[in-house]
Formats: sequence, structure tokens, C-alpha cells
Amino acid sequence: MEWTREQRYRKYKDWDAQTLLDLQAQAATSPYQMHYHIHPLSGLLNDPNGFSYYNGEYHLFCQSYPFGPVHGVKSWIHFASPDLVHWHYLGPAIDPDSDLDNAGAYSGSAMEHNGKLLLMYTGNHRDEDWTRIPYQVIAEMDENNHITKPDAAAILPPEHVSEHFRDPQLFKHDGKYYVLLGAQDAETKSGHIDIYESDDLKTWHENGYLDLGKDEMGYMIECPNLVFVNNYPVLIFCPQGLDKAISDYQNIYPNMYWIGKDINLNEAKFTPLQSHPANLDDGFDVYATQAFNAPDGNAYAISWVGLPDCTYPTDKENWANCYSQVKRLEIKDGALYQHPVDAIKNLRHNETQLNDEKIISQKAGKQYELKLYLAAGQAGKLHLASNDDLSASLVIDFNTAQDAKLTIDRASSGPAVNPDYGATRTIGLNDNEDLDLDIFVDGSLCEIFINDGRHVATLRFFARSSNQKIAFDKDTKYTGRLWSMNSIL
Amino acid sequence: MEWTREQRYRKYKDWDAQTLLDLQAQAATSPYQMHYHIHPLSGLLNDPNGFSYYNGEYHLFCQSYPFGPVHGVKSWIHFASPDLVHWHYLGPAIDPDSDLDNAGAYSGSAMEHNGKLLLMYTGNHRDEDWTRIPYQVIAEMDENNHITKPDAAAILPPEHVSEHFRDPQLFKHDGKYYVLLGAQDAETKSGHIDIYESDDLKTWHENGYLDLGKDEMGYMIECPNLVFVNNYPVLIFCPQGLDKAISDYQNIYPNMYWIGKDINLNEAKFTPLQSHPANLDDGFDVYATQAFNAPDGNAYAISWVGLPDCTYPTDKENWANCYSQVKRLEIKDGALYQHPVDAIKNLRHNETQLNDEKIISQKAGKQYELKLYLAAGQAGKLHLASNDDLSASLVIDFNTAQDAKLTIDRASSGPAVNPDYGATRTIGLNDNEDLDLDIFVDGSLCEIFINDGRHVATLRFFARSSNQKIAFDKDTKYTGRLWSMNSIL
Repeated sequence: MEWTREQRYRKYKDWDAQTLLDLQAQAATSPYQMHYHIHPLSGLLNDPNGFSYYNGEYHLFCQSYPFGPVHGVKSWIHFASPDLVHWHYLGPAIDPDSDLDNAGAYSGSAMEHNGKLLLMYTGNHRDEDWTRIPYQVIAEMDENNHITKPDAAAILPPEHVSEHFRDPQLFKHDGKYYVLLGAQDAETKSGHIDIYESDDLKTWHENGYLDLGKDEMGYMIECPNLVFVNNYPVLIFCPQGLDKAISDYQNIYPNMYWIGKDINLNEAKFTPLQSHPANLDDGFDVYATQAFNAPDGNAYAISWVGLPDCTYPTDKENWANCYSQVKRLEIKDGALYQHPVDAIKNLRHNETQLNDEKIISQKAGKQYELKLYLAAGQAGKLHLASNDDLSASLVIDFNTAQDAKLTIDRASSGPAVNPDYGATRTIGLNDNEDLDLDIFVDGSLCEIFINDGRHVATLRFFARSSNQKIAFDKDTKYTGRLWSMNSIL
Repeated sequence: MEWTREQRYRKYKDWDAQTLLDLQAQAATSPYQMHYHIHPLSGLLNDPNGFSYYNGEYHLFCQSYPFGPVHGVKSWIHFASPDLVHWHYLGPAIDPDSDLDNAGAYSGSAMEHNGKLLLMYTGNHRDEDWTRIPYQVIAEMDENNHITKPDAAAILPPEHVSEHFRDPQLFKHDGKYYVLLGAQDAETKSGHIDIYESDDLKTWHENGYLDLGKDEMGYMIECPNLVFVNNYPVLIFCPQGLDKAISDYQNIYPNMYWIGKDINLNEAKFTPLQSHPANLDDGFDVYATQAFNAPDGNAYAISWVGLPDCTYPTDKENWANCYSQVKRLEIKDGALYQHPVDAIKNLRHNETQLNDEKIISQKAGKQYELKLYLAAGQAGKLHLASNDDLSASLVIDFNTAQDAKLTIDRASSGPAVNPDYGATRTIGLNDNEDLDLDIFVDGSLCEIFINDGRHVATLRFFARSSNQKIAFDKDTKYTGRLWSMNSIL
């Protein structure tokens, strides 16, 4: 089905409630649905927004279009969690119902201030002639989760940016308030991170584009996000159109991270530790990751599992995309590690101990965690979501000997997913070392944590429901454990 | 707001989606909302339906009217759980969209059969002149939670019943299929449980009204439910208009249980163990409890916390009612006990040990479990959800000496709730015995398990959000533990 602009921007009040209920039922009962990851109640989810801790709970908001698998007029919906694993739905949060956001309440962030949670987002305003004005708006949420919008934008677009000026990250640093914004320069059409500074959250001063060094960062930077990990400043961002000679990537758009030695927000200067940015995720489907520094001292990240301008098989079921699990960030020896949070262990049940078995399970279900320690010096294939003869499966091809590497191949796992961007992803490994894999499967989502989270590869796959075998292609030396995972959503 | 019949029976497709989303947001963010009990996503919940175990999970369906706090045209919505505590929402299940159920998909039950879950419910059909025909309909749900409705009813109302003929409980017993139905006799206007029998689920034979002995069971029995507890047949049912001389009750309508020595379904004969039915719950707000025998050997029950023809303060917020936690049933020494299920312990965190403290907590939050062992031979008051000077609170007045009893008084807890039916409930205790209380609070819901579940008292109360003190009125000898409880919904 082709969606016209008129259909995508139809007001929510002009849809009928039975249609919405039917869409909710269709999404909830899809065989591809995930049950321990955040997913749409109906329609499409994209960027995570407002990831924060406030009033004794973690909060997360989601870019949502409830009426179909398309980027229609967006709103924020709200989830909360005591432990970053058990999320409960708190309903629609920011609707596109004011002049400031008449064509969508776009992405943003959250920061606690004076007992309220400030929600800063991009109001996607469209004039009658469809000219876009991106307003940066600060709404307020109280302890009862009631949200109040302001009458006016906090930041108006400066003259030197194009209409692409969005995704504000609001935070406090060294006693001042800052906003990072994704921006496209109006003249050069190059991508930047624009910095604003304030003493009082009212008057904002533009510090200018963050100096990232000599390399151009494509034609637009989306979702810029600064987080401090083990005291290093880390930029997480999506440089659309990034030259692959700077940092290679295979997805349509990259989601990169860049560890810094230092960042001077007042002077808009980033001093990198790494020579160039690197892929945050080595799989197929991660974008728009949002991270924040929590009061418990950890930096936590969550990713949209989905990409702009891509389609998925569930589009036919009128829903699209989901989120990754929350990942705790760590820097060790100058490298970024991503770890599952501890509370995810509470979802485990029915543990199976594994020790060199060729067939791990004939019928593993659709929700499991599989933790494997593969011995050095061997090569083989692990088949997930497989049919009986292993001809249809999600393949993890590993080599822990010379030229060590891991290749994830989703070509035979089910219907092709965005095949223009390839059906394999390869991660280089150190030769002749043991390989540690922590694999989470939830419906059509797979997350693979490699070597204690030194790499994470996230992907969607659309296997037949009956394909639930897990097996190696040949005898393999390993130990491991398999758990079923409880549903929480 | 007065709702006209026309408004209540407006088709879901004639409501707009923005209204539904706004109602969802309003319900989700209410300060009275519960977060570890099933509650409406919007509008009104009433009877639990189709409580069952199928395809590796527990299933529960709910009578739902999504558009307001009134008994409008009903549908079923669906939740599932691995452990009877962590429920996840699976969306709308049975919509009132066929001729068989054009004025509502009313209550019913579920039974696994040939790999499907059969959902038997009352199709509330209304003719053009608003004459009701209650059709008993068997829909089928598959492993993907897709539901198919039949073209025709399984059971048509017999001539000897009035239009009040509903709430089918479908089950298998001794190799035959049975349906219990709540019925009002057309001539005598008396309440009965009508029994149907089948060999093949297609052809149904009416065995007639269940013989319950000499006492009349009011003018209508709703939600008849047979469950076997420690091999005793137990009837759980709602005899509307029951003469209080037979069994006393204080709520507008009673929800009773009756332990039997034997039940002969073929001959429609119940042989009671207890001389007369007893209140299933000793609180203010339980009705329409549904129980079933699970494959793990236990009988589990869940209750609507809400009553027909009653109103609640959240009506102003456009949502109403919730469910109790799931209770495991047991018969000991001829008496019924109700226990929390084991998995609810997984919601506990932040344990506080208690030992004779007069003030248990100054700020307990709105989600907690409080387990107390009160010594024999004393009397006093426990104040929950209290202001600082204990003048506004939910009061538990206990006497464990002579004339031992427990009185729950919600008069000063907040706005009056259905005051025509009194603001206190009293439970008789054995003189000079220790008293064991297990109290669960979740927003505006309180469940009190008394003496290891020998009695349960369930109630709603609507305290100010700031009233979070828990304290005794004077020095009291006791031990106990207090936990905060995690949110799951």
C-alpha cells in the first residue's frame, strides 16, 4: 500500500477508534512480535526519546505513528521501568496537537530540573505551503506523568541551518545547560552538531557547530548524543551520507560512536581519542541510539531497531520496528563495550546446561538467551531459528583459528530484508582466542553480544514460526547455557 | 456526565482515534492507577473471562468498554502471563462486530481442545426493537492468538428462561463437555445455574437447573463457575438479590462460594458440604470472580474489583475498575483459603524488617506489600495511606483478645465510595489468637489476606497522593516485613 502525504498527515482525530483497536490487535498477535523488548502497540516506532531517570523510575519515550508502518505524523508515547527490563506502558505523552508541532512531535531528550522532568523535542511545524520550521520545544512532566507544553519554542532555527535542525539533547554540565542539535548547514549542505548554552534554560546562546576535526560528517547528523562513559566523553550520532572512506558501514545510514579525550562545550571543540568514529552496532538494523548518564553512575543506551527509508516484512501486518534491550556502556582499554543490564537475568527460566552438543535444541521457542563459550582454533556454523535440515536458518559462521572472524548471514533465515544493503555482516576477531557469545532472540529480533560486549550485532529476521531448531553444523568444542525468556510486554 | 443508551452503544468505528488515545493517556497517568494489577488501558473493565492455560502461558480476557467509565457495548481484550503475575497485553480479542454479538461480546470462559483455545461467551444480540437474544457462542483461538468466530450460536436460549441467560462456563468432566449458564427463570423470575451437556461440542442437551437445595438463590445468578479444590467441587457465583437471611452480605450484590461434597452434572444435583454459601471476599468491591483448574494441579481465581450499578471516583477520569491479583485456592479443614501466587514475591524489593515499631513508614509509596504478625491479646488500629496525624487514613481496627475481630474502615480514607453499602466491613476472628495479615496496596487498590488466606478483604480507596504514612495508633506487639512492589503494567 502506498501512503500519500495526505494519509500520513491525517490528524489522529480523523481516524476511527475501531481501526486503531484492530491495528493494536494485529500488532499484538503477530508471530513476529517480540515480548521482552519494547515494540509498537500499533503502527510504527522509531527513535527512542527522553531516556532518563526521574521520580524513582526509568523513563523512556518513543517516536510513534499509531496508524500504520510508515513515517506519518509523529507523537511520543511513554514507558517506565524500575529496572530497565520490566517496562510498563504509560500511554500517549506528547501529541502533535499544537501549532508548534502540527506536523509531528519529533525526537528529543529529557532532563530532571526542579522536581519536573523537562522533555525537549523538535516541534515539526509545517506552514500552509508545507514549508518546515523546526521548533525546539521544552515541555514539562510532573510526578503524576502529566505533561504541559509551552506556548513558544525555546530555540528557533538560526539562519545558517537548513530545515534539517532537530533532535535536541538537553543536559547540564559544569553548572550550565547545553543543547546538542543535529543540523545541516544551509549553504554547504554538510552535517553538524550545533551547540546551545544557557544559564537559566530560558535565554539560549548558540556556541556554534562542534569542531570534530578535518573530516566531513556527511550531509546531516541525526540524533547527536553526548554521554560520559568511565569519564570519557562519547559522542553517539548518525552521520547520514558519511563517506565510507572515513568509517566503513553497510547499513543505509550509520549509527556511530566516537570516544573523546575531551569535549569543551563552551568552545564547541571535541578532542577525539579514536582517530575516527566507529559503528556502534555491527548488525543490520540499529539506528538513533540514545544514551544517558543515570544516577547509579552508569551510562545506559537503547537503540531503535529499524532504519529510515527501509521496509520490513511486518509492514504487511501494519506495524514496524522495535527497540533493542538497554545496554550498559563501558570503556576498557580505550574501546567501547556494551553489556546487557543485570535485571535481564530475571527473565531467564528453564536453564539448559550445554557442553559440546551438536544439537542445542529441537524446539527452542521464540524467546531465549543462549550464552556460548567457543574454544579457540576451530571454525563452523551455528544455526538459529532453523528448520530440521539446517537449510533455512539464521547462520552465525565463526572462525576462532587463523583469520578469526564472525559472519552473521540472514540470507536463508526468511524473506529478504532490505537486500540492497547485503545479507551478511562480518566482525573481525583476534586469531586463536576463545569466543564468547551472548545471544538474545525475541520473536523476529536477535541481539548478539560478542566477547563480553566488545561488539554487539543487532538484527531482525523473519523465520517461519516452526523453525525453532538451534544446532551446529558439525562437532564443536564449547560450553554454554540456554534459557527461555519471560514475556514482559 | 450522563451517558445515553445511544452513546453507550455507539459503534467503536464511530469514535475517533484521538479520543481513544486521550482516554488511554488519562487512565495511564491517573494518580489512582494500579501498576501491578490488571487495569483498563482506557474506559471500563468488568468480569474476567477465559481464564485458562494454553500454549505454554496463562491467558486472561477481560470485559472491556474502551470509551468511558460506563457499561457500554462490550468487547474482550486479552492478556497473557508466564507466571500469573507478569501480564502482557495482547490487544483486543473479541469485538462486538457480528450479528450474534451486535450489542456486546459478554462474559464467558475458555477451554483447550484439539490444539485450540475455545472461547465460549454470550453474544448479546439486540433486535431492532431492542429485544435481547442471548446467544452462547464458541469462538476458537489458535497458537498465534488469532480468534475465529462461528457463524451460529452453540446454544440458543430455552423457552423457560428470561432474557437473563449468560456467562457460559465450558469445561470437560468425566469425558463429557459441560456448560454452566447463569439463568433467570422466565416464570418465577428466580436465579439458577442451567447445565448443558455434549459429547462432541456440537450437539448440546440441556440437563436443567442445578439443584442447589431448598433455598432460593435470588432473582438471577451471574457468573456461575465450578472449580475443583483439593477434590471438592466448589461453586463460585453471584446470586443477585439473595435473601440476606440465607447468607449475609453488605455489597450491592454478593459474590459467593459454596463447597460441595459432590456434584452430579448429568443429574444436575449439587450436594453441599457447607449448609449455605459464604462470601468469597470480605471487603467492599469484589464481584464476578472466575476460577479454573490449571495443569499444575492448582485452582486459581481472579476477581473483578468493581460491582454492577456502582460508581467510583475515577469515573471523573473516564476509567473504572481493575482486577484482583490471582489467588490460589485451597480447602483445609472444610474451609476455603485464598493465597497469593508464589511469583508475586518476585515483585518485592527494598525489604524493611519490622518489630513493634509504632510508625512503620512515613512515606511508603503507593505500591507495597506489608506482612504483619500481630500478637494475641491486644487491640488497636493500623492506619494505611495516612496523613501525618492519622486523621485521614484507611483504618484496620484489630482485636486479638476477647470478641476478636477485624474491622476495615474506609470512611476517612478519601472521597466516599458507594456509601449506601456502608464504609466498614468486619471479619470475625478466634479469640486470643495471633493474627496474620498480608496486605497488598497498589494505587487505589488494597487486598488484605487474613490468617493465611482464610479470609480475603479487597477494596478500593482514594487517598490523597501525599498520604503515604503507615502507623499504629499506639504501641503494638508484632513482627513484620514491608516491601516496595515493582510495576508490571
